[in-house]
Amino acid sequence: MSTHFKRNLFLTNTSVEEALAQFLSTLQLDKPKAKTIKTTQALGRVTAAPVFALNNSPLYDCAAMDGIAVSSQKTIGASENAPLTLKLGEDYIQVDTGDPIKPPFDAVIMAEELFEGEGDDEIIIRQSASPWQHLRPVGEDIVKSEMILPSNHKIRPIDIGVLLSGGITQLEVLKKPSIAIIPTGSELIEAGAEIGEDSIIESNSYMLASLVENEGCTPNRHNIVADDYDAIKKALFDGVDNNDAVLICSGTSAGREDYSIHALRELGEVVIHGVAMKPGKPVILAIVKGKPVIGVPGYPVSAFIAYENFAKPILNHIATGSFAKQDNIVQARLTRRLVSSFKHKEYVRVKVGRVGGDLVATPLARGAGAAMSLVRADGFCIIEQEIEGLEAGSLVNVALCRPIEDLEQTVVSIGSHDLMLDIVADMMPSLYNSHFSSSHTGSLGGLMALKNNEAHIAPIHQLDEASGTYNIPIVKQLLKDRKMALIKGVGRVQGIMVKKGNPLNIQGLEDLPKHRYINRQRGAGTRVLLDFKLKQAGISPADIKGYEREAQTSMAVAAAILGDSADCGMGIMPVANTMGLDFIVIDKEEYDFAVPVEFLELPHIKAFIETLKNPTLHAKLEAIGGYDVGGCGEVVLID
Amino acid sequence: MSTHFKRNLFLTNTSVEEALAQFLSTLQLDKPKAKTIKTTQALGRVTAAPVFALNNSPLYDCAAMDGIAVSSQKTIGASENAPLTLKLGEDYIQVDTGDPIKPPFDAVIMAEELFEGEGDDEIIIRQSASPWQHLRPVGEDIVKSEMILPSNHKIRPIDIGVLLSGGITQLEVLKKPSIAIIPTGSELIEAGAEIGEDSIIESNSYMLASLVENEGCTPNRHNIVADDYDAIKKALFDGVDNNDAVLICSGTSAGREDYSIHALRELGEVVIHGVAMKPGKPVILAIVKGKPVIGVPGYPVSAFIAYENFAKPILNHIATGSFAKQDNIVQARLTRRLVSSFKHKEYVRVKVGRVGGDLVATPLARGAGAAMSLVRADGFCIIEQEIEGLEAGSLVNVALCRPIEDLEQTVVSIGSHDLMLDIVADMMPSLYNSHFSSSHTGSLGGLMALKNNEAHIAPIHQLDEASGTYNIPIVKQLLKDRKMALIKGVGRVQGIMVKKGNPLNIQGLEDLPKHRYINRQRGAGTRVLLDFKLKQAGISPADIKGYEREAQTSMAVAAAILGDSADCGMGIMPVANTMGLDFIVIDKEEYDFAVPVEFLELPHIKAFIETLKNPTLHAKLEAIGGYDVGGCGEVVLID
Repeated sequence: MSTHFKRNLFLTNTSVEEALAQFLSTLQLDKPKAKTIKTTQALGRVTAAPVFALNNSPLYDCAAMDGIAVSSQKTIGASENAPLTLKLGEDYIQVDTGDPIKPPFDAVIMAEELFEGEGDDEIIIRQSASPWQHLRPVGEDIVKSEMILPSNHKIRPIDIGVLLSGGITQLEVLKKPSIAIIPTGSELIEAGAEIGEDSIIESNSYMLASLVENEGCTPNRHNIVADDYDAIKKALFDGVDNNDAVLICSGTSAGREDYSIHALRELGEVVIHGVAMKPGKPVILAIVKGKPVIGVPGYPVSAFIAYENFAKPILNHIATGSFAKQDNIVQARLTRRLVSSFKHKEYVRVKVGRVGGDLVATPLARGAGAAMSLVRADGFCIIEQEIEGLEAGSLVNVALCRPIEDLEQTVVSIGSHDLMLDIVADMMPSLYNSHFSSSHTGSLGGLMALKNNEAHIAPIHQLDEASGTYNIPIVKQLLKDRKMALIKGVGRVQGIMVKKGNPLNIQGLEDLPKHRYINRQRGAGTRVLLDFKLKQAGISPADIKGYEREAQTSMAVAAAILGDSADCGMGIMPVANTMGLDFIVIDKEEYDFAVPVEFLELPHIKAFIETLKNPTLHAKLEAIGGYDVGGCGEVVLID
Repeated sequence: MSTHFKRNLFLTNTSVEEALAQFLSTLQLDKPKAKTIKTTQALGRVTAAPVFALNNSPLYDCAAMDGIAVSSQKTIGASENAPLTLKLGEDYIQVDTGDPIKPPFDAVIMAEELFEGEGDDEIIIRQSASPWQHLRPVGEDIVKSEMILPSNHKIRPIDIGVLLSGGITQLEVLKKPSIAIIPTGSELIEAGAEIGEDSIIESNSYMLASLVENEGCTPNRHNIVADDYDAIKKALFDGVDNNDAVLICSGTSAGREDYSIHALRELGEVVIHGVAMKPGKPVILAIVKGKPVIGVPGYPVSAFIAYENFAKPILNHIATGSFAKQDNIVQARLTRRLVSSFKHKEYVRVKVGRVGGDLVATPLARGAGAAMSLVRADGFCIIEQEIEGLEAGSLVNVALCRPIEDLEQTVVSIGSHDLMLDIVADMMPSLYNSHFSSSHTGSLGGLMALKNNEAHIAPIHQLDEASGTYNIPIVKQLLKDRKMALIKGVGRVQGIMVKKGNPLNIQGLEDLPKHRYINRQRGAGTRVLLDFKLKQAGISPADIKGYEREAQTSMAVAAAILGDSADCGMGIMPVANTMGLDFIVIDKEEYDFAVPVEFLELPHIKAFIETLKNPTLHAKLEAIGGYDVGGCGEVVLID
């Protein structure tokens, strides 16, 4: 038993930069191999050598305009007062743009400057032509032997056109490296296979294969290899023998990693095992038969970070002979405090948007298992190893993973979650070329974000206990210094979600103390409503088992009930309907969007309001059930 | 004859925006078609509908750490003073990260917090476990029925991983549209075919095919169609019947365009013929059988601009159901005055670099035939139709076509041309991940650019007539307010380039008046040298036929001599050697790089200096011949 629990302690904590430098100096990568291909098939490939033109372009002196070719000397003296008649064949020939111009002709007169002569073969000019006028000299665009493209250049469409014009029908490009990807772990199943009681769907290898493809390499995925030492050794040998590099996906646990690390120690040299970064610490950098083998940790986010930091530069070098370009870095204002440790460099996923002039970055879930937060992320805020944390409001560097243009046209929404936000986010890009980005912190968190200029809108459903009304009182109270409005959203039915068929026969709040409850986080509108209703009913929170267990959204509450780690929890009817749960109605509430008046004129906020009014949205919400869409999209000024 | 010369007058001059709007409203594009494909093959495809998770991830409550699973209630009371012994099977089971946790267990204790017990199946804890600790609840990452991706989303590697984790093994994506590309023109030949005396190599269709491919469509190139009305009609019909859209490449001249425009008028509706933009004016926007047909002008730059403004948004709509994203726009300081006309919107190719804080944009050749300038361009400066011109120094919007990260690491060189600049530009990216960008304006133009902070270095070879020395006097004179240095380049042999075998038996400057000369532009070092030598020899420039004919580089002079539009011209021996010309030595000159001292510390300038010292560079220059590389890369401070 004891060895089982000590394995992780052997990980080293080398810094990211040091680890990569140490690995590369041990590895000694060869120059990439070259290959001759047709120019017409070279899009996206990388030149292996500089390319020099084989012919001039244009190939000869030629007309730059439609008109006539003349000998300039013969036109001397022509003017408005002394028009000159030219004879076809003798004094001029007719030319179209691109036609060759040969001696004795040395100039072109444009069609627009010609006048009809007496005969069909006569033309009158009223101005002399200067030598070489409207003539494209041979090689004007490309001179034979001129360098068209340098080496290590990624070929673009325009390059292909110019290469062909310069007489290049084939050229040397770098060979596409092939990269083996080996998923390992007995608990893994292929996507689509039947799910057992301890299955994990293998997905990392396909993410890695796509990343490898985007890097200009050919991925070569191995079938899942069980936790069997010999099988793993065999897969590694196959991988190294038939490819230029290997990515081996370790399991998430120290136990499973053992197989890879031991096999790599036996077959080759392990240069690094453990890097001072988070997520992604247990990365392995090894060399087998002179080829790089990277052990990628099992959690999806760890795998992604390990890929970006180690696999990407190395594969890029194998594919292009130079290292990957720097990421697209922007400066943004951090919306929340981020604590980190001196022990590691940390990559925090963030949402990014432009709010009132500034780019703002809002941190997402930090867990290594939270793969959805990678999908939702607009970029990574990188906290260097020597920095212990970053204060809210500080300017940070963010490596973007979405185009900045999209972010400029994005509504930043922070507040309470509702299914309608997903539908709105789905509709806005195709209808208005605008985007909708939401982070879920509950109603109060959203209003705080507006106060700090971190969001455009805050979806809220906050009951004012004194007046019994929704939303307007809390906005007035928290944002009194700012001119605010409310964009009306939907009415929603709030209640208790229970398992299908209500097996525990829960009838109302009075039954909660008998069962396992799962609550929402502090500041969530649903929790405020629960507390209000409990007080009215005279029930103490202390009597409810699980009152302290907090989920971030209604959806997460529903998932816990479905998974039987809880019996009941407050939520909204649309979620219960969507997730197939039964529902006990408690109250109806108003779910609206608080917005500073100044943002109402932004084109993406206008697009958002139009989307709220869209009958397609209403139909979709009514199909889910539990929504009242009357007034959706109306703007109410708060004074 | 008369109709031939009037054809162009029928072009309309609709603004770019109006033309596109008018075309789209007449066209009425359908929704893109959808298709079901495997998730593992979906990289880069666009979702046709929102994608909802089919299962939770994780699939069940599971361990977030390696350690043991316990029932939290059984650990109550454990502390440093009251350690608690747990029994395997009864009180705990051993778990790896990701293993399922089932009742009665509800918490995980990390391996690091465990102590060995008496027996092999006993473990001691010194702290109680709180419920749900180190446990990833079912659906923590993805909740079943949650939207994973919206519609119209371009699928990235991370999306593929999450889709698979969410149980999605196949999904609906938009079908790849197929686009016919029809090159027309009897003068066109396929690249690689034998070149006739009036041939033009067909290259636009391949550039367009690559652009189409980059837009996520499948290009379908037709063979070259001769200028034959029926053949063009047939190709158009084939194109429309078997594809979603057609690009027909017209010839460069009005004469050739006629066939396309008449065929399109007969087969369908021509919505627009002629747009107020430059280059690219004679674009055709037509509809045949409900499908868009775009007539692309023949000059490469015109074809590119027409594609970007009309084909790209339309194809993007066919491929994704929404319009192309805005380009990557930056603000840059214009280095030269640009004159334009109210008559059209103009796209000026520019080089862009970061010099002393600012991004600076230097215009390149503006001719529609200058395809190489598209290859060299870092972006386009767009002059709107209502603006007549832009002053040097004004801030302009530049649509970038290279990554801004590359531009940040680029040496901006403006001045005299030499072949060594190409070699340096080829070596720097792979050696130092830096780039070298050069514009050629002659020595004086380069020094002016330094004065105006538009370049990092100026390659110069400027004789001081008074002292007979090179470069330092002129730098002192023109940049007296700035602390300057000279990075030593090469010694070059200057002389007269003549045809192979010297058929006119040119022996020296005294022979120039007898033959057709081609000169360099004012401010070029070669011209200064010529003028100095002519003065010494007592020859008047007025006696030299072609003294006014100016070429921008030595290479262009050589091409003119090779093409027999001139007999001789001054240039450097390396160019004569490379181009296969004979050479009469006149003098030796020094070709160096003027640089403000403040730039010497920039990493890309350091990389440039290292490259100049590189023996590989010296060997390449010596192989060409006519260079003296002694001292190359030495830095001389000018005081």
